[in-house]
Amino acid sequence: MNLSPLIDELIESFRCLPGVGPKSAQRMALQLLERNRPGAARLSQALDTALASVGHCAQCRTLTEEPLCRVCSSDKRDDSLCCVVETPGDVYAIEQAGSYRGLYFVLMGHLSPIDGIGPDELGLDALFSRVESGKVKELIIACNPTIEGDATAYYIADNLKGQDIIVSRIAHGIPVGGELEYVDGGTLSHALAGRKRLAGGAQGE
Amino acid sequence: MNLSPLIDELIESFRCLPGVGPKSAQRMALQLLERNRPGAARLSQALDTALASVGHCAQCRTLTEEPLCRVCSSDKRDDSLCCVVETPGDVYAIEQAGSYRGLYFVLMGHLSPIDGIGPDELGLDALFSRVESGKVKELIIACNPTIEGDATAYYIADNLKGQDIIVSRIAHGIPVGGELEYVDGGTLSHALAGRKRLAGGAQGE
Repeated sequence: MNLSPLIDELIESFRCLPGVGPKSAQRMALQLLERNRPGAARLSQALDTALASVGHCAQCRTLTEEPLCRVCSSDKRDDSLCCVVETPGDVYAIEQAGSYRGLYFVLMGHLSPIDGIGPDELGLDALFSRVESGKVKELIIACNPTIEGDATAYYIADNLKGQDIIVSRIAHGIPVGGELEYVDGGTLSHALAGRKRLAGGAQGE
Repeated sequence: MNLSPLIDELIESFRCLPGVGPKSAQRMALQLLERNRPGAARLSQALDTALASVGHCAQCRTLTEEPLCRVCSSDKRDDSLCCVVETPGDVYAIEQAGSYRGLYFVLMGHLSPIDGIGPDELGLDALFSRVESGKVKELIIACNPTIEGDATAYYIADNLKGQDIIVSRIAHGIPVGGELEYVDGGTLSHALAGRKRLAGGAQGE
């Protein structure tokens, strides 16, 4: 029996959230209406405001309500470092880790010709001209270690050959706190291939 | 670094949803803004409409945008049966099971003196006067099998002693598809105490 079209529409609307199936959506809708109407009103208001105001940073393309995001417009960041990530969520993750002091460039995706996502969609022209302008000394590529992320990383590195700039990629290996026994084979291979010399022999490359 | 007050407010607003922690809330906010703005607009609209229109059914107290909910106003339901549940979510669950054809009464909670929830808050006067009006022949109590749910069930049954009405409680036992080995002790005790005779001896009670 169709109990209430308005509640059904609300349940259906919650399905747009990542990781929310029919049961969770129903629980969210009913719980808000039963017990937390101020919370529901606040959520609706926050959605409206964010939708109306949040756009992309003119320099790094991350999500922000200002013309330049707070990282790009800060004078406390090291503008000789630029970290290339796939999504604004990656920027949040790196900022929350708290050890990086450089700037970002957000691709808003990865190369995926099958979905029609090429260099133009990722704003790579803007990235390359930012590099050519000369401030950036090191470009740290932090694309995800997937096939598309790898392809994107190689494409960027390839296009910057011959430029006077270091292009690096963040390390892939065993997560801190992880146990070797439970780590998948691909990660182990990366960890072995990326091993670092601790002592003995000639130092460094 | 505080990246964006508007996005932070949106993330914080998502925390009002049940089962949503800081990481999920961040993922929801960023994913909607990056990839599904129409979905976000629809969610905001559905929240506003539901908040403005959804109230309680005058007869059974469930959530509905109409004066009487669709179950109470239907002429295809058996009005001699009334099922007492704690929340509108319980009504959804029973309706989705699809085998019940009677009406409901929604307590919107359970007796919990420590939280100030007594018989008045649960609308028990309305329930008792509905029983006294005479249409209901059987009251099926489907409160949750918790301490508070049990207390609520006993309170209702106790107050209806002497009335010409059957008061029953839904069965507690092994869930269909459950394995005996993995069922907790309380459920097993209930299942044993509530056993039904299949053959032999005198029939019935």
